[in-house]
Amino acid sequence: MVDIATRVYDHAWRIDPIVRSLLDTDFYKLLMLQTVFRRHADVRVKFSLINRTTSVPLADLIDEGELRSQLDHIRGLRLSRGESTWLRGNTFYGKRWMFGPDFMAWLEEFRMPEYRLERRGDQYELTFEGSWPEVMMWEIPALAVLMELRSRAVLKGMGRFELQVLYARAMTRVWEKIERLRALPDLRISDFGTRRRHSFLWQDWCVAAMIEGLGTTKFQGSSNCLIAMRRDIEAIGTNAHELPMVFAALAEDDAALAEAPYKVLEHWHEDYDGNLRVILPDTYGTEGFLRKAPDWLSSWTGIRIDSGEPEVGAETAIAWWESRGQDPREKLVIFSDGLDVDRIEALYARFHGRVKIGFGWGTLLTNDFRGLGPDDSLAPFSLVCKAVSANGRPTVKLSDNPGKAVGPADQVERYKRVFGIGAQTAQPVLV
Amino acid sequence: MVDIATRVYDHAWRIDPIVRSLLDTDFYKLLMLQTVFRRHADVRVKFSLINRTTSVPLADLIDEGELRSQLDHIRGLRLSRGESTWLRGNTFYGKRWMFGPDFMAWLEEFRMPEYRLERRGDQYELTFEGSWPEVMMWEIPALAVLMELRSRAVLKGMGRFELQVLYARAMTRVWEKIERLRALPDLRISDFGTRRRHSFLWQDWCVAAMIEGLGTTKFQGSSNCLIAMRRDIEAIGTNAHELPMVFAALAEDDAALAEAPYKVLEHWHEDYDGNLRVILPDTYGTEGFLRKAPDWLSSWTGIRIDSGEPEVGAETAIAWWESRGQDPREKLVIFSDGLDVDRIEALYARFHGRVKIGFGWGTLLTNDFRGLGPDDSLAPFSLVCKAVSANGRPTVKLSDNPGKAVGPADQVERYKRVFGIGAQTAQPVLV
Repeated sequence: MVDIATRVYDHAWRIDPIVRSLLDTDFYKLLMLQTVFRRHADVRVKFSLINRTTSVPLADLIDEGELRSQLDHIRGLRLSRGESTWLRGNTFYGKRWMFGPDFMAWLEEFRMPEYRLERRGDQYELTFEGSWPEVMMWEIPALAVLMELRSRAVLKGMGRFELQVLYARAMTRVWEKIERLRALPDLRISDFGTRRRHSFLWQDWCVAAMIEGLGTTKFQGSSNCLIAMRRDIEAIGTNAHELPMVFAALAEDDAALAEAPYKVLEHWHEDYDGNLRVILPDTYGTEGFLRKAPDWLSSWTGIRIDSGEPEVGAETAIAWWESRGQDPREKLVIFSDGLDVDRIEALYARFHGRVKIGFGWGTLLTNDFRGLGPDDSLAPFSLVCKAVSANGRPTVKLSDNPGKAVGPADQVERYKRVFGIGAQTAQPVLV
Repeated sequence: MVDIATRVYDHAWRIDPIVRSLLDTDFYKLLMLQTVFRRHADVRVKFSLINRTTSVPLADLIDEGELRSQLDHIRGLRLSRGESTWLRGNTFYGKRWMFGPDFMAWLEEFRMPEYRLERRGDQYELTFEGSWPEVMMWEIPALAVLMELRSRAVLKGMGRFELQVLYARAMTRVWEKIERLRALPDLRISDFGTRRRHSFLWQDWCVAAMIEGLGTTKFQGSSNCLIAMRRDIEAIGTNAHELPMVFAALAEDDAALAEAPYKVLEHWHEDYDGNLRVILPDTYGTEGFLRKAPDWLSSWTGIRIDSGEPEVGAETAIAWWESRGQDPREKLVIFSDGLDVDRIEALYARFHGRVKIGFGWGTLLTNDFRGLGPDDSLAPFSLVCKAVSANGRPTVKLSDNPGKAVGPADQVERYKRVFGIGAQTAQPVLV
């Protein structure tokens, strides 16, 4: 029996919106947002979307009108009452009232600021300018929209059964990964796949599969707030490169620049505690960051490894904790860079028992369509949305992989000098 | 939005019926039924269900109450008005009014006769006795019910995502087969998979996949009347072993027995023409059947190869046509025994251009769950439902594979003598 009301309701949508809620974003965005809202509401930033995989001609694949409709739809979103209640009332990482009433009152009135879209050759130039706490909210939905419009553009040309079999293959692939992960007894893993997901529905399917396949002890939760809320699992995340990058750009001189990555974490230390105290040390080189780090940072819960050889990063972290008189077995190492099952198994085998391990599984959980679309046209690609300037000054990121460095060449050189970066090993940037 | 009416409607079912229409049967059953109804309505037959794969303990897997509910549900079915219209008005094999008004009037009042069900060890004994035109209608739905209840019994123990991935794998497998078949330019293939299907919905999915994947030139149609009606494709089929088996059992002496397989086809020749004139020569040995066949049979459209080495059967048919002055390139060979893609490709390669080829693809289209269920518990198995006696006399089938012979040993010997059967090569009976 056809549900006529549902059909009529569906027809009333001018588009099929990709992002339908302000909570369809990463949890760390909201944690950072609260800090930025309270401390840096007056900073002006510019965020820009960059497609590192230039062989994917986004502007040829995606209709500009469709893209604008999706972005405009996001500008119309507001936090719903239920969403606000969930943020206000929920326990995150065992802590109540993580989001203060001042912040929540502001967030309830929040709307996405303007965007600027232009076509440049076969790519789009998509930028956002304005106050930091407003602009930063664009990052995740902008990426999700571009990723999913690209998926839709490819899927549009496929038959009904081709589509069904495409998803059948993708489901089988995810499930076979989950079956392998099930064999790791003390695994702790989370979904970090919002930003470069194949589609919202697909991310949600992957999360549901992880819940059934691994259970909520091994599968700790999702970085996606909307999915975490609807599926009643933990929202996962702490902080990202955005904070030290903007902070560093704001530094008045080299001395202030050298201090910026620690200053940011001083604020974080005041704002959050427990499991939210996770160091992301690679923005300007992990090795130098840890060597010069103040001692109080060694009391933090863990370190997230997001670039470079993860084995090297984790060994560096363990050696650092030991050098500071900390027991690494009490510390958490979170791996979150380009993970897939082979790597997860290898890292688990190497570090299990030596530290607590957490995995933040991203693109190859929620977008592993490699080899599945016609001419491999659904393979994930490397799209990022970053702060490119703060109060008019360019931002810089070095990371532990020279392939991931961003910023003007002269500033990159300056940062390398200030942070004492020597030779780095290039890693292929897959996702 | 939940469709409450549909949910309430679904809840009103005491069971989830497997067979929901009298047309959920093979088309050849209805063709044979019309002939039997007109010529042999007074013959008393007994049909019996036999599980040749004794390692599948049907009575342990399937609840007797559930089985009875499904069979009882079938006894309540009647031809709907739309179904009757389809049978009366449709063109089958290019011919209108294939089913006469006398037969249709009877069929509109038809209900399934009684069944007799007893548990014997870990198997069920399921038998049907009564007038031939009534009892014969049980064959296909009885098999479909047992097959699907077995599937359901296994699936009951699986999680929601395990199930989704199970079907994802099965779909991928079917689609990969279809992709291979697509490469055969003059392929003509039909679905013959009703009787040993995994489930009704699965058969329907497979048919829809064949339509999309091959198109309706290569995919000629389905033997399943209900699916053919709903999907607006051809209903496919001609006749089966049932006719010569019952006829042979009724023969008064050895001379009449030797004539029975031809007598049956004399009637068929009077009742049907064109593409429905397909010889099924293997009931008592293909080689002897063809050698002694009257000349008018060589004018028939084709021969169906349903046991033995199919290459041998087809070569025998070609040699026979040639010996009778017929051009094999004008003749149709239909392969229908235990086909899968490897075999289809091999037969196509060998006979393409020498004869017209048709494939009736059965169990390994609609039930290829080999290796997919826990402990391979969803693999298809060899279940048959056959006429075991007619007017109190046992029936016998020899076929071209000694492993498929049925009937009391003394009668099997007598038939072998009458039909001059020498040594036969045993073939594994997979499905």
